[in-house]
Amino acid sequence: MPRFALKIEYDGAPFAGWQRQPDRPSVQGAIEAALAKIEPGVHSIAAAGRTDAGVHGWGQVAHCDLQKDWDPFRLSEAINFHLKPEPVAIVDCAAVDDDFHARFSATARHYIFRVMARRAPLTFGQGQFWRVNQELDLEAMHAAAALLLGTHDFTTFRSTMCQAKSPVKTLDRLDVTPIIHPEGIEYRFDVRARSFLHNQVRSFVGTLERVGAGKWAPERVATALAAKDRAACGPVCPPDGLYLANVVYSDDPFAI
Amino acid sequence: MPRFALKIEYDGAPFAGWQRQPDRPSVQGAIEAALAKIEPGVHSIAAAGRTDAGVHGWGQVAHCDLQKDWDPFRLSEAINFHLKPEPVAIVDCAAVDDDFHARFSATARHYIFRVMARRAPLTFGQGQFWRVNQELDLEAMHAAAALLLGTHDFTTFRSTMCQAKSPVKTLDRLDVTPIIHPEGIEYRFDVRARSFLHNQVRSFVGTLERVGAGKWAPERVATALAAKDRAACGPVCPPDGLYLANVVYSDDPFAI
Repeated sequence: MPRFALKIEYDGAPFAGWQRQPDRPSVQGAIEAALAKIEPGVHSIAAAGRTDAGVHGWGQVAHCDLQKDWDPFRLSEAINFHLKPEPVAIVDCAAVDDDFHARFSATARHYIFRVMARRAPLTFGQGQFWRVNQELDLEAMHAAAALLLGTHDFTTFRSTMCQAKSPVKTLDRLDVTPIIHPEGIEYRFDVRARSFLHNQVRSFVGTLERVGAGKWAPERVATALAAKDRAACGPVCPPDGLYLANVVYSDDPFAI
Repeated sequence: MPRFALKIEYDGAPFAGWQRQPDRPSVQGAIEAALAKIEPGVHSIAAAGRTDAGVHGWGQVAHCDLQKDWDPFRLSEAINFHLKPEPVAIVDCAAVDDDFHARFSATARHYIFRVMARRAPLTFGQGQFWRVNQELDLEAMHAAAALLLGTHDFTTFRSTMCQAKSPVKTLDRLDVTPIIHPEGIEYRFDVRARSFLHNQVRSFVGTLERVGAGKWAPERVATALAAKDRAACGPVCPPDGLYLANVVYSDDPFAI
């Protein structure tokens, strides 16, 4: 059967998460339902990362096996047609070899977390940012973020529900960039690693926000990391601002 | 009675427009209802520009008269509290003299129009952009926009419903800036004038999009302008991407 890689964008707000569930709306379920209108039968797609409820996709990747040898662009248009009015869109599509697996072939994941600093409630982008009341100290957050880079036991920054075998991960990048919007100042966190622990990005951002707000000294982040103790983590921030931005493959299926 | 100037942000999608209407939701109605919870009675506020259904506010300005000599920041917080969950927020508030009038004291208006070029349906920002399928030719749009600057009879770019006494207006600025988003390329139109005719910005953008898409030569815009004929206008684009971005006063009430 021909296999296709799908690059997927979605607003996670109305979904119980990526993963298909019997009685609740999911991104996976929405795409599989659209595929069933294109080729009758049961479809089961696999994604690079199973995002939690409320978490968004800018560059989620999944693969699917179909009967027909579709032109990839026409396939993406057909899926998008049947996805309406769900806030899910196929933004790229490519034919791939049988041994491509959206999850197991991935060599890195790239998450973005968007924090909006402003006093008033959000009118645009509700559910798409974590709103904080005050501007944050960028230099302090950069100093603290640098302490997390590299290979560590990240038990402190891992949900107690996390099912990964090991708490040791290698963090390749953790940057914060300010972006001026008419609505306020966005602090855009850029986080990259081969793979992540459950709630790792939200644990990082919630902790760094404490640093940016002047409530934690940057060095406290090193102490928290060394403690290897979930209780040493800052508050885990809400899912609203989290986006799976990109998935990296050694042989990029979407390269032109 | 103490008078206050309010700077207002709103998502226009769920509203029938700025102006209060008996049976339909309006931005003015939402704010007046919030004011009535703060000071009982009937409130009537006046805005710098009466935006149409679906048009947004980033920096709309209105003024209101209240009984109490409110601290402006506390007043904005109180109104925002009562505005929830409407997508309307007071983002700045100032005490002003009795002779300040949000509409008549304004010396310029600044609109932004956001066009998003991408093939897939929008998942984020539905109703906040006008989506077009293809990238647009920036140089051609700049050349055409330059032909509209200055003082002209803008009958071609004016709704037949427009109630302004004269079709002669002075266009001070009409720029297009490309902005790269994860979702696609935004063409952000920046349009400034002392005042505008009804549907003038949407008529400009709809016409310039034809130029950017290669369907109109830039010079055709000069011909259309000179025709002083509504039928010579390009297609009027939808309200989705239009934002009243800023209102200028010779004595800015919000200056710190």
